[in-house]
Amino acid sequence: MGLLDVFRSEKKASAQIAKERLQVVVAQRRAATGGQPDYFPALQRDLLAVIRKYVDVSDNAVEMDLEQQDDLDVLELNIKLGDDSR
Amino acid sequence: MGLLDVFRSEKKASAQIAKERLQVVVAQRRAATGGQPDYFPALQRDLLAVIRKYVDVSDNAVEMDLEQQDDLDVLELNIKLGDDSR
Repeated sequence: MGLLDVFRSEKKASAQIAKERLQVVVAQRRAATGGQPDYFPALQRDLLAVIRKYVDVSDNAVEMDLEQQDDLDVLELNIKLGDDSR
Repeated sequence: MGLLDVFRSEKKASAQIAKERLQVVVAQRRAATGGQPDYFPALQRDLLAVIRKYVDVSDNAVEMDLEQQDDLDVLELNIKLGDDSR
């Protein structure tokens, strides 16, 4: 499965970092006539709130990113788990 | 960026399907001593509920998947948008 390959390759790139992390990626493919989904920033906040129901996430353990590339809108959350810098 | 490449390659594979879709992937890398995150099924339901705040998603437009591979736990939601089979 392609996506797993990506995560695996990222793991090898940062193999020296043994910390657990949680990565959330939302990608929306737009129709040719569509615009950027304006709900993405709100969705990003909601996703983080949902994740915090289940795992302990400090503010400085979260990296958030929103990108556009042609017809693809991508939302990312990268969360370090077990972060002790809270 | 690697993840975008994955979505792009998937797009080419299904280029004949012009529908918009939304893909959500959550991957958690476990520590060597960790077990499977037992909150993933509940998180999956919550994520779908959050997405439904923003987009109209019929039940039969959603594919959900939970996978494990070595130290990586992966949760997927594949959502067809603008599905008219409701």
